[in-house]
Amino acid sequence: MNNRDNLIEKLVTQNNQKILLLVMDGIGDIPHKDFGKKTPLEYAITPNLDKLAKDSIMGKMIPVLPGVTPGSGPGHLGLFGYDPMQYQMGRGILEAVGLSLDIKDGDIAFRCNFASADDNGVITDRRAGRIPTEKCEELCSLISQSIKEIDGVEVIVRPSMQHRFVVAFRGQNLCDALTDSDPLTEGKRPLEVKALNEKAELAAQIANKFYQEVRRVIKDLKPANSFLMRGFSGKPRIPSMMERFKLNSVCLASYPMYKGLSKLVGMTVIDEAGKNIEELFHKYNELHNKYDFFFIHVKYTDSSGEDGNFAQKAKIIEEVDKALPIILEKKPNVLCVTGDHSTPSFMKAHSWHLVPVMISSDYCGADGAMRFTENACNSGGLGTFESRYLINYLLANAMKLNKFGA
Amino acid sequence: MNNRDNLIEKLVTQNNQKILLLVMDGIGDIPHKDFGKKTPLEYAITPNLDKLAKDSIMGKMIPVLPGVTPGSGPGHLGLFGYDPMQYQMGRGILEAVGLSLDIKDGDIAFRCNFASADDNGVITDRRAGRIPTEKCEELCSLISQSIKEIDGVEVIVRPSMQHRFVVAFRGQNLCDALTDSDPLTEGKRPLEVKALNEKAELAAQIANKFYQEVRRVIKDLKPANSFLMRGFSGKPRIPSMMERFKLNSVCLASYPMYKGLSKLVGMTVIDEAGKNIEELFHKYNELHNKYDFFFIHVKYTDSSGEDGNFAQKAKIIEEVDKALPIILEKKPNVLCVTGDHSTPSFMKAHSWHLVPVMISSDYCGADGAMRFTENACNSGGLGTFESRYLINYLLANAMKLNKFGA
Repeated sequence: MNNRDNLIEKLVTQNNQKILLLVMDGIGDIPHKDFGKKTPLEYAITPNLDKLAKDSIMGKMIPVLPGVTPGSGPGHLGLFGYDPMQYQMGRGILEAVGLSLDIKDGDIAFRCNFASADDNGVITDRRAGRIPTEKCEELCSLISQSIKEIDGVEVIVRPSMQHRFVVAFRGQNLCDALTDSDPLTEGKRPLEVKALNEKAELAAQIANKFYQEVRRVIKDLKPANSFLMRGFSGKPRIPSMMERFKLNSVCLASYPMYKGLSKLVGMTVIDEAGKNIEELFHKYNELHNKYDFFFIHVKYTDSSGEDGNFAQKAKIIEEVDKALPIILEKKPNVLCVTGDHSTPSFMKAHSWHLVPVMISSDYCGADGAMRFTENACNSGGLGTFESRYLINYLLANAMKLNKFGA
Repeated sequence: MNNRDNLIEKLVTQNNQKILLLVMDGIGDIPHKDFGKKTPLEYAITPNLDKLAKDSIMGKMIPVLPGVTPGSGPGHLGLFGYDPMQYQMGRGILEAVGLSLDIKDGDIAFRCNFASADDNGVITDRRAGRIPTEKCEELCSLISQSIKEIDGVEVIVRPSMQHRFVVAFRGQNLCDALTDSDPLTEGKRPLEVKALNEKAELAAQIANKFYQEVRRVIKDLKPANSFLMRGFSGKPRIPSMMERFKLNSVCLASYPMYKGLSKLVGMTVIDEAGKNIEELFHKYNELHNKYDFFFIHVKYTDSSGEDGNFAQKAKIIEEVDKALPIILEKKPNVLCVTGDHSTPSFMKAHSWHLVPVMISSDYCGADGAMRFTENACNSGGLGTFESRYLINYLLANAMKLNKFGA
């Protein structure tokens, strides 16, 4: 860690100012020819956001590096002030976190597929014919009941969608330097899990025993009579937002993945924060005095983008706009509206496109933008910067940063 | 130092082209509601700058890192092509430099407060009732006459404002790794200065003897009968602008702080460069043939910003504009107008807001901007970049940089 990486930690100071980070997941977009060559932010009717925009400052953010499309993990870590290249999270951990599995220091998590095997154990279908989710839940329940621990290591099993599930090992001296059992092709038996260093030998043993035990439980339950393991990963060591930025922070989100990510950076996570945008916003008002930093996560901008549903994405933006007066009741000193990445509905996927960002505070300045749109942000007073520096601007606008040098 | 940090040094070459860096200190600002939601640059009437702007290229600079408010030291180091995070200057050195104290390699400088103490030496007022500056000058003169050296180490004392003064030790084997004597609270005696490593033990001894000697001189002179020391710092090792950029550079400034900073990077400093903007500009014309790089510093944009005096800041900009034809008489090949940081008059302080920059040369290009304002710079052809890279653009426009690679 050089001067550049920990300068902010040295300058930060506490005060009573409130910061609200409102993330519309996947908000960034590109013009769509079926909608007047507009983006959803341009297409949506947003009187409240427009009003805010006139006295706000805009910019564009690079989530990871120019051209790099981020997953939800790196996308959000950047927004929370963490270099997503420095703090890389294993797939297993992210999946576990996304399934509300409360990962602790020392745990190892990994992803599994139910698979079909012949009598010799050779894999004939790596996805077990994509069994329905209910079947997966049934099988996971069976495994959970049969295998509670292996050699003193606790085993935690969580079903996901279709043939997918996640497992965590909890015990002493587990190391995640392990190879996958997934041969990545059909016609082979699952590979033995191998330790990549000495410290991981115990974990490798447990993983291989786990394979044997699960096989014993499910071997007659075709098509899901085998399974594959990959992405072994431990909980990353991430200093908390309190340690780094002296922020008493709270997450208001509906989806487990975002709650989990917030927990990893030390946020308080409200279990039942709200079922919709209005409820999440009301929860902010309710908790206003208790925290310094509020992260509110709106999921459906991203999912309608991924569904290729432009109109729906615009509608979600309008819903956020309509609910906006709720958070302005107890207006935070610093209000930031942005996304973790772009999800152009034309692409039906996350993308690398720069992410529009808007900051409103008494000291934010302004740049003549009349609306919060991608194009307005292109000429914004914040210019273009990496998402991991957003926290600097939020802290600065909340007067929580001392001057650097004399 | 990696490739990124010394690439320019490898590419730079000398020629006769002249670069003029005109710094309006704290020029960046935010719209002010009492002035038609304009910034001072927008509000000021600036026909000469406007004319220049039409054939110039604009951009926005980040002085240190996004969101970080710089002091004058880091702000200017960036403009001179130095990473302000790599070259951090101790408070003592900056204060000494600001008081025209000509700091040399190996010197240690530190800040002092006159303080009041009771008969046991316990501090009763850390600022000696904020004695007037004249009193401070008198006391410093007394100390200077009484204590010229300690164990062969020369002692240099300089009064500052009110109760403040600065001291430098000049001698062999002095190291600045020292703790402060300031207990930061009243009701305690000044702390013993301690060495933070073995090399600093000599300096610690000298500092503690200095305390005893000064006390002997002033102990009956209540309210300023004691003093506190802090911010011990040595002169940073900074390679000169000649070494790094092959630039024969000169500083035209009125204020000691900026002269001192220029001296630290090896500029020639003209002692009586001018009492006002016109005189500074005439001095440039006079010296045109003698140097490659001219740094002209205009102080009052910053000080009117710090005073919260928007109208005055705009007026200073108009004065610069009015004087601009003077430097265009011997038009430099590259003329850059910018600031070291923003000082919004609404905030009455330095701030983190991006700094507008404009470069004019035969090869600069243009971006359609009609005026030099924050908003025009937002859409400028130079985009957003860290101040420390400004020198690259200046050298490039002066055709002083070779091509990188074939």
